[in-house]
Parts: sequence; C-alpha cells; structure tokens
Amino acid sequence: MSDYRDELEALAARMLARPDKGAVADYIPELRHVDSQQFGIAVASIDGEVVSAGHADEAFSIQSISKVFTLTLALGAIGDQLWRRVRREPSADPFNSIIQLETEKGIPRNPFINSGAMIVADVLLGTHEPRETIGEILRFVRFLADDESIVIDHHVARSERQTDFRNVALANYLAAFENLRNAPERVLGVYAHHCAIRMSCRQLALAGLFLAAGGINPRTDSRIVSRERARRINALMLTCGQYEDSGDFAFQVGLPAKSGVGGGIFATVPGRASIAVWSPGLNPSGSSHLGSIALQELVAMRGWSVFG
Amino acid sequence: MSDYRDELEALAARMLARPDKGAVADYIPELRHVDSQQFGIAVASIDGEVVSAGHADEAFSIQSISKVFTLTLALGAIGDQLWRRVRREPSADPFNSIIQLETEKGIPRNPFINSGAMIVADVLLGTHEPRETIGEILRFVRFLADDESIVIDHHVARSERQTDFRNVALANYLAAFENLRNAPERVLGVYAHHCAIRMSCRQLALAGLFLAAGGINPRTDSRIVSRERARRINALMLTCGQYEDSGDFAFQVGLPAKSGVGGGIFATVPGRASIAVWSPGLNPSGSSHLGSIALQELVAMRGWSVFG
Amino acid sequence: MSDYRDELEALAARMLARPDKGAVADYIPELRHVDSQQFGIAVASIDGEVVSAGHADEAFSIQSISKVFTLTLALGAIGDQLWRRVRREPSADPFNSIIQLETEKGIPRNPFINSGAMIVADVLLGTHEPRETIGEILRFVRFLADDESIVIDHHVARSERQTDFRNVALANYLAAFENLRNAPERVLGVYAHHCAIRMSCRQLALAGLFLAAGGINPRTDSRIVSRERARRINALMLTCGQYEDSGDFAFQVGLPAKSGVGGGIFATVPGRASIAVWSPGLNPSGSSHLGSIALQELVAMRGWSVFG
Amino acid sequence: MSDYRDELEALAARMLARPDKGAVADYIPELRHVDSQQFGIAVASIDGEVVSAGHADEAFSIQSISKVFTLTLALGAIGDQLWRRVRREPSADPFNSIIQLETEKGIPRNPFINSGAMIVADVLLGTHEPRETIGEILRFVRFLADDESIVIDHHVARSERQTDFRNVALANYLAAFENLRNAPERVLGVYAHHCAIRMSCRQLALAGLFLAAGGINPRTDSRIVSRERARRINALMLTCGQYEDSGDFAFQVGLPAKSGVGGGIFATVPGRASIAVWSPGLNPSGSSHLGSIALQELVAMRGWSVFG
Repeated sequence: MSDYRDELEALAARMLARPDKGAVADYIPELRHVDSQQFGIAVASIDGEVVSAGHADEAFSIQSISKVFTLTLALGAIGDQLWRRVRREPSADPFNSIIQLETEKGIPRNPFINSGAMIVADVLLGTHEPRETIGEILRFVRFLADDESIVIDHHVARSERQTDFRNVALANYLAAFENLRNAPERVLGVYAHHCAIRMSCRQLALAGLFLAAGGINPRTDSRIVSRERARRINALMLTCGQYEDSGDFAFQVGLPAKSGVGGGIFATVPGRASIAVWSPGLNPSGSSHLGSIALQELVAMRGWSVFG
Repeated sequence: MSDYRDELEALAARMLARPDKGAVADYIPELRHVDSQQFGIAVASIDGEVVSAGHADEAFSIQSISKVFTLTLALGAIGDQLWRRVRREPSADPFNSIIQLETEKGIPRNPFINSGAMIVADVLLGTHEPRETIGEILRFVRFLADDESIVIDHHVARSERQTDFRNVALANYLAAFENLRNAPERVLGVYAHHCAIRMSCRQLALAGLFLAAGGINPRTDSRIVSRERARRINALMLTCGQYEDSGDFAFQVGLPAKSGVGGGIFATVPGRASIAVWSPGLNPSGSSHLGSIALQELVAMRGWSVFG
Repeated sequence: MSDYRDELEALAARMLARPDKGAVADYIPELRHVDSQQFGIAVASIDGEVVSAGHADEAFSIQSISKVFTLTLALGAIGDQLWRRVRREPSADPFNSIIQLETEKGIPRNPFINSGAMIVADVLLGTHEPRETIGEILRFVRFLADDESIVIDHHVARSERQTDFRNVALANYLAAFENLRNAPERVLGVYAHHCAIRMSCRQLALAGLFLAAGGINPRTDSRIVSRERARRINALMLTCGQYEDSGDFAFQVGLPAKSGVGGGIFATVPGRASIAVWSPGLNPSGSSHLGSIALQELVAMRGWSVFG
Repeated sequence: MSDYRDELEALAARMLARPDKGAVADYIPELRHVDSQQFGIAVASIDGEVVSAGHADEAFSIQSISKVFTLTLALGAIGDQLWRRVRREPSADPFNSIIQLETEKGIPRNPFINSGAMIVADVLLGTHEPRETIGEILRFVRFLADDESIVIDHHVARSERQTDFRNVALANYLAAFENLRNAPERVLGVYAHHCAIRMSCRQLALAGLFLAAGGINPRTDSRIVSRERARRINALMLTCGQYEDSGDFAFQVGLPAKSGVGGGIFATVPGRASIAVWSPGLNPSGSSHLGSIALQELVAMRGWSVFG
C-alpha cells in the first residue's frame, strides 16, 4: 500500500501545482466562496483499506453525487417499479434541460439528470414529511460510510432554493404530466437538502465502496444491494453520470462515475476499488477540472478502465 | 472448454425452441427473404480458441456491425483528427434521425449512427475510387478474421441503395455543412457496400477478438491497434453501439456491443472473449430479438458484465 | 340594421340546433360546470351600434382574450421596448409549450402564448402590488367597454392557480433566463386574475371596437391607441391569435381574432366592425367549436375577410 | 395616376440614394454576379393600369416568388386534396429546415417553405416528364402576365442544382415518408427551374394582379381562380410568405407578400392593387433589403395595410 500512497501524494502535488484550476460554481450563491486552491483524493480498495492524499478529509458539498445514494434507496424501496417513471438512457441535453420532458411526456431520461432525481426524491418522500425523508437519506449515507459525523449544510440547501427557477420549472412539469405524487415544493425541498450533504473524499469513497464490491460494504460486511443491482447502478453511472458528456468521459476515463457541481467526483473500479476526488474549480461542462484530470491520470497509471 | 460447448449448445437449443422470434427487417428488400428460424453463437476467448453452437457458420449480412471495422480503419488512417468531424456522445434520437445534424451544424453525435458512419466512410474514401475503398475495407475484415472467404453481397448493397432516402438526406446534409470531402453518392456507395459484408458468427467473433485482447489478434499474434485504442472503441460501443437503446443495453447486459439489422450482434468481454450471436428476427428497436436474450443469459451465467 | 339582426338571429338559431357542441374545457376545475347548450354573438359596427343574438348578454370567462387588453396596456406603458422581451412571430408549438423558451433563451415567441402574456403581466406589475395591477387591468377593460359592471371571477382565478403546473414552469423558466422583473408567483397571480375577467359578448365587442375603428372608441369618442398601433395589434391577432392554428384560421376565416378556453372568440373587421361570439364547447385545438363555425359563416355571408 | 407616378419615382430615387443595399445572395453561384445598385418598383391597380419607377423593366430571377404561381396551378389541378400532403401553418424554422419534417412525419408546414413547394412541384409533375411540367408552369406565368417574352434562365437552374444539398435532403426526406409520387431528382429538377423564371417588376405585378382583384385578371378579363381561392392564397402569403419572419412582416407592413432570394418581393393589396419591388441586396433574413423598406414606406403613405 505504501507505493500506492506515494503515487497518490505525487498526483495530489501535481494537481495542486497546476496553474489551471477551473472556476468555482456560481449559480448556488453559498458555493461561490469556496477556496479553489484545494485538491483531495481517496481510494478505497474492496478489502476495505483507504489510501488518500491532499485535502481528502475536507468536507465539501457533494451535490449531484448524492443522486447515487438516493437512487440506491429508491430501488430498495420500490425496485424495478421505478423504471415506469424514469428511463435509463443518456440524455443528449444538459442536466437541467426541459425539452425532452415535454417531448417525452414527463418521463425523465434517467435518474441522474435533475428531473429524474426529482422522481427519485418523490419516491422516497412517499407519504412522509420532507423532514423525515431528508433524515432517512442522511442516515443511509452515514450508515454506508459508517460515519455519524456526516451532515447536511442547510445554508447551502436554502441558498439553492432561492435561485432554482429551472428546477421549479422541471418539478412543475413533472406534476403537469402527473409524474409526481407530492407537491413540487416538497419534492424540491428534499432534493435541495440531499444535494447539500457535506462529505470528505474519504467518507465518499467509503460510502460508495459497495458499488465496487458486488453490493457489499467490506468494512462492515453488510450487504447493501444485490450484485446485480450494484452492476446496474454502475452501468447507469457510466452511461448517464456525466450528463451530456458521459460518452466522452467513458471514452477518456472508462469508469462509472458521478460528478457534482461542488467539485467532487465519485468513481468505481468494479471488483477493485472506489475513488473520490475533489477540487472546487469546474470545467465548462460542470465537472471538477482537476478532479477529471487526476482521475484520468490515475486510471491510465493503474490500467483501471472497465474496457480492457 | 467442453462444458463451455455444452452451455452454448443448450443456449442455442433454448433459443431455437422459443415461439417468439422477432420480425425480419423489411426496409432493405433483399433482407426480407431470410429464414427467421435460425440462431447461431460463437465465443472466441483471448487465447484464440472458438466455441460455437447453432447456425454459427451461416453467413449473414453484418450491416451496422461493419461500422466497428471502418471506425478502426479510419482511426488508423487519421487518428484523433477524426473527432473534429464526429463526436463521441450517445444520440438520444434514432440511428437515422436528422434533427441533431441540423441543430448541431452537421457534426454527427458518434461514429455508429448512420451520419457518423458516413463521415468514417468519407475519411476512408479520401481521394480514392469507391471501388478501391470498398476493396480495402473487405481486405481489412478478411485480415482480421484471417479468412479469405468473406465477401460482400452486391445484391444487398444495390437493394439498400434503392430505398435509402433517409441516408441520401443525411449524406446531403453533411455536404451542406461542408462535413464531406467526397460527393454524397460516392460516400453512400461505400457505406452501402461495407454494410453488405457477409460473415458468420465464427468469422465475426474472430475478426473482433482484438478488441477483447488489448488490441492484438491472438491467433495471428499481430497488433491491430494500441491497447488504449481498443479500450476506447469498446467505450464507444458501450455508450453508442445500440443507438437510442444503449443505456438500456448497458443496464441489462453490461458489455460493449454493436448490432446490425441483419440480426447479428457483436460484443466484447474485455480481457476475456469476444462474442457473436445471430438470429434474423428483430425486436422493436432493431436489434436481434433472440440474440439480445441469448447475450443477456450468457453474460448472467458467466458473470461477464464489465460492471462487476 | 334590421336585416342584420335577422341574419344574426338565424345564425344563432342554426348554431343552437346543431347536435355537435364541442367539449367544455376541463383543465380549470371551475370552468367544467358551464352549460354547453349556449351560444351568443354580438357585432359592433364602427359607428358604435351593436347587434346581437342568442346568449349575447350572458357573462363568461374571457380567459386568453384578456391578453389583447393587457397587451394594449403594456404597449401604452412602455411602447416598443416590449419587443426586447417578447417577439412577434407565430409559434409552431402549443400555447403552453416550453421548448422554444429553452432553445430561444427565455424570449417568448409572441405576447399571446402563455409565456409571452406573462412578460406582459410582468410589465404591467412593474413595482406595484399584484392587487393594484389587477385593479388597473379591470378598470381599463371597464373603460373600454364603458361598463362598470364587468368583474373578475376570483373563484376561477384561484381554481386555475391550483392546477397551473405548466404555467408555473413557464414563469420560472422566464425567471431563470432573467426575463422577469417580479417573482414568478406574483406574475402568475396577475395572469390568472386577468384571465378570469367575466364579460358578455356585447361587452366584449364594445371593449375591442377600437381595434376595428383605427384606435378610437366611437361610442365615447376617445382615442385608445394610434391607428398604427391598432393595425399592429390586429396583425398580431391574425398571425398569432389562435396559437398553432393561426395559419388555418387565417386561411378559413381571414380575420384578426383571439380565442379563450372559456369559449369566447373576439374578432375584428378592420374599418368595419368588431365581433364577439361565445359557446362553451371547444374543438380539439381549444377554440369554441360553434363560435368558430359561426364566425366562418358570418364572414362568408358578409364578405368580411381582410384578404379580399 | 400622375401623382402616383411621382410618388413612386421619388421612392425609387430615395432607395437608390441609400448607402445600405444589403448583400447579394451567394449560395446560388449564378446569382452572385448581379449588380446590387438596382431598384425597381411596379404597382398594378385592379383596373389594370400599371405605374412603375426605377429598374422596373429589368428582368430578375424570381426564385421563391414562383411558389405563388405553382401553388395556384396545383390548387387548380387537385383542389383541397393538396392539404392532405402539406399544411397551412407558419413554420417557426427557416425555409430549408428539416427538423419539423422529421417530427411531423414528412408533412411540410406550408407550401412556401422549400419542402412544401416540392410537394406542389410533385403534384404538377403528376405522370408527366419534368420538361413538360416546366413548360406548363412557364406557359401559365406568361398567360397570367399576358406576356410571351418571359423565360427561364437555365444557367441559374443548373447552378442551383450543383449546390442544393439541403434541398436534396428535403426531397429525399419527403420520399422516405412516402409523400412524393415522383423520384426526388425529378421533383428537384422542376423546382429549380420554376425558381429560375426571370421576370421584371412590371411583369410580376401583372402576373399576380388576379390575387388583388378577387381572382380575375382585369387586363384580360379572365377568371384565374374563384374569389375564395384568391383570398386563401393571400392568407397563406400573409401568414407564411416570409418564412420565419412572417409575423414581423405582417406587423411592420401588413400585406400578403412573397419574397425571393433574387431580391424580388411580390405583395397584394386586396381589392386595390398588386405590387412588385426588386433590389438584389438582401437583409439577414433573405428578403430584399431596399425592397422591404420601400414596401413599408409605400404602404404607410397609402394606408394600404389590410389591418385598418
């Protein structure tokens, strides 16, 4: 493991030395103030060990990465019935586009674009109060990471709600097509809060390790999902996890992954490891600039692509 | 290998016994007359051995599967310059849709939809005569399969040209956006002919084995492409190989694959094997009905998904 | 005038005798209960006289016809500056489509589709309270019709707000593109209330008579708008007044007109007369079924098309 | 009539003195060489008199204005059956867009966009040879203008065919949806030739005068179409004649009109006059720059808008 650690340390040092850092997301007011001079990486292997480097213990807003966990919970709740309300195809349009929602009658393309994640949030809400559902999601993530210190940043959640006009439009469009059971405002409340979960790279790598390990968390030895479901969530991350850049990401990196505008990227190497990287500056398509580069370098060095 | 053979024989028998066979493609007149009561499968492992069952030695029209081989050739000719003229993203629209071509200014989404494959054909044409380019493609496929008996069915090629109004539209649209170097008719000639290559499952599995074997054909020990290029072609097959059903196919099967309306499907298990299945009846999305089911069953039995 | 009256009486009788009445709008709960066995018509000539027949004094919900009056007010307030925020082109899509709003960056196609009328409502709101703006619109309509008995049906306005998910989406989309000055909820409040104005055919014909009379209300001899502006509002009604059926309506009827889902249609015969018809049953495109037929018959009898 | 003449002379002088002339169309090679320093105007009143000014006797390529004449012929041939194959709605997209053709299953929006005019050409072709149909169209235009000197410029027709990739795409798309009876190449031949008719402003004003005069040519006293059909062709020109700028043109000018990329515009003042203007420089939307301005000034001076 020690050469591993050296490799990650060198990688983190190279990233922190680069002059290009990308631009911190500005559309959620509270996220604007994050210092862009940060980079962290953590790799959890399927035997449960974690190696990390850089700011790997700094908590950040995981944003859309949370959709992987809510999808897992919703599949646990209603199984394949979910696919009556959301599809499993990449979207050619950006994550917040409403066009396909109109032409495809209120059925989102996949559970990782915003409208699809709202369907997932609506499933989790069921007949509960938003507060309860938000609590359930947080408990699940803490359980996955085996770490009670994970919290939701309510400032960020409220900040997002103030300028989320497009999300309000998407949720109301789902309601217009009768693809929401709960009022749009309640669904948006759950959505904004699970996006505002704060985690470190280390916590994130551990929380998602079950997806690399056939559905089992090797640290706690508990089965989270069946092997088949783990595979399928990985497949969705690969084809849809980077929105309209998913094809390019598969071509360049070759791993199932999910990014968030907070600068985090979570990836799985099925049968081997999970990876979390974080650096707040984004590239034009809204993924972490340094995170993407680091992931690409690490995968090349290790030969970790799922494509051979 | 003998239990392998039994497994494939049993699979072929199960498929041939099913009452549902799908419907033979009717839009290319010459393809209408194929007997739908056929099923073949061949698996080539990276050590070069082939196991097969059913009608695995029956030649069929490989149609769009040929795009994997022309893409390989074009990348060999001009490398990453290809990506200036065609993208690497899944298309949300059907394989012959023209909408994105207009909104995206004549740059096809990926090299597997029809318009993208026409760019590839145009690259291969270069300054040659169509006849020469068609010959070059055929020689390449024979070389890959190490089999000089592979031919092009000129009847099928001519038959396709008589009713290919949408393809004519696509090629002229590419020309309108100055993304063709050659006249549309010449490009369409090359395109129709490489789609009309006839191969058996056995030949197809061998011809594509290099994609499972890190770029090397293990039977002839010749390097076809670099390991990185093999990976990337696999990535493209996984994200774009089944057109607008690529997401679902990745979710259900989890392997890089390319289908053709002749009823063939070619798939790779990186680091392990290549697979060719064939049955002429198609499902509503234009892939082999029995072929898709067989592939799914085989992958489940063998645990061959790239997703763990 | 007496043969005129006979003609309208006969027309009303023919309409009421028809077995086909169309279907009453059901998407605004409060409108569902209107008796479909009603038909009224009123024609106001530019000398100020009104002839009517059938249920011409029955008040009904004018719905989108109100957009003609709010447009007139907004042009009075800010003149051609309005056209920086909304265009003047027919929309190929339905009145509540959001697709063009995304592809055209939040600039609605014209002031008669829902999103365009929201821009108009936002202009009228300015820095006022919704209650004040609603009052201003109502006073303007009363002034135009010279009739203080015109009211807003607050039940209908509230009823509409309960199920207007698509309108909420449109307003939030305008806000996302920074084409609203006021909060979406305030704009939607004004919008729902001006749509809920109740008027009779007689009141409506009089209120809009200025558009047929070169901008002057001949009954009160007051100039409402310049002759040029009256022309231009007529032009907008002809090209955009029936949403995606405007072309067909111009082809069949040949008059500037605006319909509402309450079953009213208002039309102008420039230089001659204004017409209001009402019958609650709608045709599939959302215009009054009998109203459209009656208008077509009247125009044919009188030779009133603007096209010769 | 003499003050009329003075008015037009002054208008022509003002136009020729302007420094802004627009840009001559360059996408048809043969049209590039036309001198942009030209402006002509002719007004034919419904009593048959013609007043003209500037280069009103200079022949130019009428291009899409010819679609008014072919539409008239096709309606004469098959009447309202035409509307099964083409609609009567404005197109939100440019004249050569293919998007709506795909989403609306091969039914063009209206007979003035290119695809719609190809349907009209296909109707006229029927079972004839292209040469015969082209001859029939030319004879009809000569008959309308009562002028045997009108010709087709075959150089322009051939020149257009060399670079009409988008039109080839459109025609093949119509064929793919089985909305062409003849081979695309034959339809395109007829289309290119009727667009290449050369006429002067005087000839054009006379040829279209029947549309202003209730369907009768007042010079020859022959009925061309019924009054109702003349009205309806005027309605189509107003709602669809300027492609995606039809709404703006109706708003600014307020007359039925059809433009061509050769720099001509034909307009009708129903019940009064027909107008032909010509100046080769185009504005960004492809209509004559000076022609549009002149038409707007003339209509304002004369109060000729159909909207009051």
